[in-house]
Formats: sequence, C-alpha cells, structure tokens
Amino acid sequence: MPLSNADTNITWHAGSVTRSERQALLKQKGVTIWMTGLSGSGKSTVASILEQMLLHMGKAVYRLDGDNVRFGLNTDPKSLMSKGVPEAAAKRFGLAFSADDRAENIRRIGEVAKLFTDAGVIVIASFISPYRKDRDSVRAGMSPGDFIECYVSASLATAEQRDPKGLYKKARAGEIKGFTGIDDPYEVPEHPEVVIDTESTSPEDAARQVVAYLEKGGYLNA
Amino acid sequence: MPLSNADTNITWHAGSVTRSERQALLKQKGVTIWMTGLSGSGKSTVASILEQMLLHMGKAVYRLDGDNVRFGLNTDPKSLMSKGVPEAAAKRFGLAFSADDRAENIRRIGEVAKLFTDAGVIVIASFISPYRKDRDSVRAGMSPGDFIECYVSASLATAEQRDPKGLYKKARAGEIKGFTGIDDPYEVPEHPEVVIDTESTSPEDAARQVVAYLEKGGYLNA
Repeated sequence: MPLSNADTNITWHAGSVTRSERQALLKQKGVTIWMTGLSGSGKSTVASILEQMLLHMGKAVYRLDGDNVRFGLNTDPKSLMSKGVPEAAAKRFGLAFSADDRAENIRRIGEVAKLFTDAGVIVIASFISPYRKDRDSVRAGMSPGDFIECYVSASLATAEQRDPKGLYKKARAGEIKGFTGIDDPYEVPEHPEVVIDTESTSPEDAARQVVAYLEKGGYLNA
Repeated sequence: MPLSNADTNITWHAGSVTRSERQALLKQKGVTIWMTGLSGSGKSTVASILEQMLLHMGKAVYRLDGDNVRFGLNTDPKSLMSKGVPEAAAKRFGLAFSADDRAENIRRIGEVAKLFTDAGVIVIASFISPYRKDRDSVRAGMSPGDFIECYVSASLATAEQRDPKGLYKKARAGEIKGFTGIDDPYEVPEHPEVVIDTESTSPEDAARQVVAYLEKGGYLNA
C-alpha cells in the first residue's frame, strides 16, 4: 500500500520525532503564555484577541481556559460520577476548591501546557491562578524560555466594577466563598515577563504587546 | 505598537478562534489515533513510524505515550511529593496501579487527547489501555470520527517472546504484579476502526495502513 506522498528513499528511524522537527514544520517555537490576574482583569479578552492575531499570522495557537479544562481534565467529583467513575475515585480525583484542589488544578493545566509547548504550539493559558507557588511550580517544570508569565493587571476596584460574570457581587453577598480578591488573596507576580495594565491599555494594544514580545524573543520563527 | 504582519482592516471579534479555523491553517483535521495492545505488540514502533510519515507529509502530529505522560500529568505520589506537593494531596492525586488509578490514567490521557484534537493536531496515543470500559469512555467523550481505535494485535506468545523491556520476564518471576496478559486481562477491542496484525505486517506497512485510513477519511485535508 503506497503512501500517496513519497515515502520512497526515506529511512524511518527508531524513536520519536523531535520538538525541533515539529517546530520547523510549524515555523514557530512552542511556548506557554501564562496569563494571570484577578477575575475581571481582562485575561480572557486579551487572550481571545491575541489568539486571533496569532492565527492571522499563520501561527498554530491554542487556548487553555476554564471552558475547556474545567469540564474535562479538571472536572468536579459529581461530573466524574455522572460519567461512570465510581464514587470513591470521583471524590479522590475530581477537583473542588480547597487549596490542594486549586494547586492540582494549576498543576494539571501546567502539564498540559508543557505537552502543547513540546508539540510546538503557542499555548495561551488564562486562569486567575492567584498563588505564586503554583505558578512558579509550572515555570519550574518547563525549560527556560518556554514559560512566559503575563500579569494582566487591574485594580480590584476596577475588576469589581467590570464584574463580567457577576461573581464579585455573589462573593460580596457571601454566596461564593474563597473568592480571589475578596476573601482569598491574589499574589502579584514578582518577575513576570510581560505586564499588561488593562486600565490604561486597550485589549488590542495589550495583545500587540504580547505579539511584540514573541517576535523579539524569536518565538514566531523556527 | 504596530503588528509586523498586517492587522489593518481586521476586526477582532469576541470569543475564541474555532476549531475549523485552526484546521484550515494546519490543512488537516484534528483526530486521536488510539493505539491499544499488549506490551510488546508493537504499538510504539508503529506509532513512531506513523509519526515520522505524517511529519514528512507536512502534518502537525504529536505522540502521547508513557514517556511524556507518566512523568508529568499522571505521575506517582512520590514524584509529586518531590515537587513540593503536600503528602495528602500527592497520595490523592498521584497515580499508582490500582484499577481506579489505571482508569484515571486513561481518563486524563483521553482528556488531553481531546484538547489536542480540538487544537487541530493529529494525536497518536499509544498505551496498553487493557480495559474496554476505559477506552470506550474516551471514545464517548469525543465527537464521532474524532477517535480512531487502532488495535495493535500480536499473540501473547509473540509479545512475550519479543519482551522489549524485559517486563514479561519480571511478571513471570512475580516481580511485577497485575501485568497485562499475565495476571491481568487484556480486553480485545470489539469495534476498532483499524486492526494491525504485527505478526504478519511490517511496522512500515502497519503505519501506511493508518495513513491510508486517515486519507480515506479526509483527515489529511481541511
């Protein structure tokens, strides 16, 4: 059964294709852009525009966010049970909101981001990820240059005024416990590669700022 | 700060880039090729050649296997502790070899494969994945056509004779417990999309068989 595209004169070697072979194909370097900031700081808006800009530049880009992670890899015990996971296992592996669970949430996302990065893809991970320790663990697990911490900054007052999902209102009313900025801390990054102030910068300009960082760092070629 | 590639006349919309936009860029459809079979059946060999063939055809392909998953996303409690995870959390989230742990191992891999598939990448997942229920759960979580079960078949006698990692020897000596094919069952797929018999087919021809399936199914264009 011949391969339609020539496999004549090619010797198939043992072992895997390398990251640099994948990057050469995609004409870019794999990297994780980790957007952290308060709820309402503008992470999703900037991430969405950044994703579109990179796609328009012909780059392979993928977003990891609450929508595609919380309902899959990092889902809660109840959802796991509804998918047929036995109760004990569902309680053990499903994630809720304790400190351990939040750390494991970020750990798993970091491991997935690392795989995408190894695949040569530009990953945009956008999660509040309030704890320095959890973000630093993700960074520590990756090679230097593979992790770009992007602090999306807005004051609590501004974020709370925007309140796009009505979550601050619920947190103030005591309907949500342990909400970042209200009754749980947000630990500002100490050495982020990129700082975006969404109070003084438009989302478009913020996204351009990240693109410029990627261009300067040579991530958009391979 | 202007974007070097024209972002003039482009309106950035709310929401994410779609899967079909990503696929159009990569000129292929995202899909998970799930290789299942006994240890020594030839999964890794076929997966490696398939990966190389697809790369040579200009396709974005990524392998998930024990090497990049077991030491990261699905690592064991001890490794988690060595990375600073508190003992209770490490024991809870780290994976060992109980039935629950094995199921969670496959579940997490399936969720990651689903993300890569959504990203438009051709994923080759190669894991013994001996239980039908676990494989079927992965299939059930994906859209029809996104999951291609590829049964890599060899008799136990052949696989044991090959014994590339010396694991059958250890299992026969009782040094490994619960080893698939020896003291734990391998449940043969009932309706796999592709069956590869590595006793009668060379690894190259086996890989060509999968490429032909992908071509016929329209996965290699978008």
